[in-house]
Amino acid sequence: MARTIRLAVIGGDGIGPEVIGEALQVLDAAVGDEAVIETTAFSLGADRYLATGDVLPDDELAAIAAHDAILLGAVGGVPGDPRLKDANIERGLLLKLRFALDHYVNLRPTVLWPGVESPLKDPGAVDFVVVREGTEGPYVGNGGAIRVGTPAEVANEVSVNTAYGVERVVRYAFEKAAGRRSKLTLVHKTNVLTFAGSLWKRTVDAVATEFPGVAVDYLHVDAATIFLVTDPARFDVVVTDNLFGDILTDLAGAISGGIGLAASGNINPSGAFPSMFEPVHGSAPDIAGTGKADPTAAILSTALLLDHLGLGAAADRITAAVTADLAARGGAARTTTEIGSAVRAALPSLEHR
Amino acid sequence: MARTIRLAVIGGDGIGPEVIGEALQVLDAAVGDEAVIETTAFSLGADRYLATGDVLPDDELAAIAAHDAILLGAVGGVPGDPRLKDANIERGLLLKLRFALDHYVNLRPTVLWPGVESPLKDPGAVDFVVVREGTEGPYVGNGGAIRVGTPAEVANEVSVNTAYGVERVVRYAFEKAAGRRSKLTLVHKTNVLTFAGSLWKRTVDAVATEFPGVAVDYLHVDAATIFLVTDPARFDVVVTDNLFGDILTDLAGAISGGIGLAASGNINPSGAFPSMFEPVHGSAPDIAGTGKADPTAAILSTALLLDHLGLGAAADRITAAVTADLAARGGAARTTTEIGSAVRAALPSLEHR
Ligand SMILES: CC(C)[C@H](C(=O)O)[C@@H](O)C(=O)O
Ligand SMILES: CC(C)[C@H](C(=O)O)[C@@H](O)C(=O)O
Repeated sequence: MARTIRLAVIGGDGIGPEVIGEALQVLDAAVGDEAVIETTAFSLGADRYLATGDVLPDDELAAIAAHDAILLGAVGGVPGDPRLKDANIERGLLLKLRFALDHYVNLRPTVLWPGVESPLKDPGAVDFVVVREGTEGPYVGNGGAIRVGTPAEVANEVSVNTAYGVERVVRYAFEKAAGRRSKLTLVHKTNVLTFAGSLWKRTVDAVATEFPGVAVDYLHVDAATIFLVTDPARFDVVVTDNLFGDILTDLAGAISGGIGLAASGNINPSGAFPSMFEPVHGSAPDIAGTGKADPTAAILSTALLLDHLGLGAAADRITAAVTADLAARGGAARTTTEIGSAVRAALPSLEHR
Repeated sequence: MARTIRLAVIGGDGIGPEVIGEALQVLDAAVGDEAVIETTAFSLGADRYLATGDVLPDDELAAIAAHDAILLGAVGGVPGDPRLKDANIERGLLLKLRFALDHYVNLRPTVLWPGVESPLKDPGAVDFVVVREGTEGPYVGNGGAIRVGTPAEVANEVSVNTAYGVERVVRYAFEKAAGRRSKLTLVHKTNVLTFAGSLWKRTVDAVATEFPGVAVDYLHVDAATIFLVTDPARFDVVVTDNLFGDILTDLAGAISGGIGLAASGNINPSGAFPSMFEPVHGSAPDIAGTGKADPTAAILSTALLLDHLGLGAAADRITAAVTADLAARGGAARTTTEIGSAVRAALPSLEHR
């Protein structure tokens, strides 16, 4: 009997629902009869907030957590919308999910697919994965401010880093590297952020002894951005903190053809909570409804989802279909649904398994 | 009578002294009889530390502070040198100078000079300035750690942001923008670093009312890295915090032909303390002594220095000479001294003033 996968789907705002619509169709077609995908839609994001005032009610968080995995489009309203001034959808919804579901690995592969143009003259063979820590760093929300609005205001942000949190994500990164080209680059700013930097550095050195086959490199975050434009092919697995990972993965998306192609997984490797898969791009309200959104990043996110759930063959079919589609695209502009259909059509046949 | 400029010179480590040697010669030639440059050399950096154990003794800091300006090459020993393990030359020397001399503006122009190749296919007309805050943010050294070396270790870093500190650098950035193409982009991460982000955002909004002619834009730091590779010509003046500025300016250097060309000024606009000018690049011990170091960034830093001291005509002569030299360079590799001589030879004649 086919395995049932209970999937929580958060289309979100702007182009989110559009790209997720295509991604779900590709997902269904790719698994064939290997699994039954049972979806539950959750209406969350800026639109929901504007309609009801809710960001992420506890009972909905609990309901989401009862699923096997989560597929998320994008959340966020029109920038500068005054009605959203007091809501922080990013913190209250997206980051809340990542923290509540202990998504300590934020996995962000970067591939310059054949046929895709890079803004770089000579990118070389770009194929690396950023393992971004997802539950610590300056994202913890432990800041504060005093005398707000006065000339004596002080606003602090605290980056929290624990041996517990750093060790688990570093170990995951080493495991990834061992299964790839066996090169791990720690990115931090150890010469300035000396306390956090020292913890990250010592942890990498310690875990490295368990992975003698993995070559370890270190780069300051500023230098890492240079190499991302001058020699991105040098990277295999990058492990870094939550904020540096945020910055590096947008840059990585840009050099590999745009974040319209960048997939990501917010992963809880222990399985204690469902993992969440989402394109790296945002809700892009300016192009919502125009059919201009590229669903490829969302589609590739479903491949990461299948991989995570142990359905590697179906994941590979999606990656193969996207690869074929990207190579065939050429310069012609296609709509969201045209791209979705083309990827479905390019899926390797399920008959000859 | 010609004005005397007392210049503290810190050649530093690696290629630092080599590029500063050329820069000083260009500086002298460019000012002609408009000023007399009196230099005092300070031997500081990793080499000094290894020889004497000193990083920046108080009396030397005081002596440096008694000068009109500081020219610094680069500091830092060979990465991984075990003898430097317990010294943090970056914090103890470079950052100590920036903080002690209240260099709250870290000015980093980015220009894609005619004749210089960018790693980008289509960079457009790149000409912007990053105004990086220099005395606050996560650079303050207010972190700490407990239970170091145990599985229960917690290492925190604190980013401190004050209305006092943010307002003065934002005002400086608006003034810069008003004297350029009148566009200011605030870069931060307001959706995650909500306390600091809110202070930065409110400050920019408030100061903007005094500069109605300056168009104001906002970008999250992750999105800013995307635009730096897809549309760097969109930037005029960028104002941002210490850490984001560190990251963005290395990336900016990379897209505009390499940090071998990137100049910077650590400026105290009040004049209470001498400002310090330095190339953005590091000490590059791997190429020290080979003659491979490009002194252009150090030379351009002396132009920023002259501008700061009100010797704008001499600064313009240096910029003109560098522009001419870069346009003429072609692909041929030249040594540090060859480039220095060529720039001196390209200085507009002083006779016809
Ligand atoms: C929307 C924002 C909170 C988020 C982040 O900073 O993590 C986004 O930029 C991302 O990278 O997923
Ligand atoms: C050496 C280091 C402390 C310094 C910094 O982070 O500011 C450098 O990267 C720079 O940009 O001048």
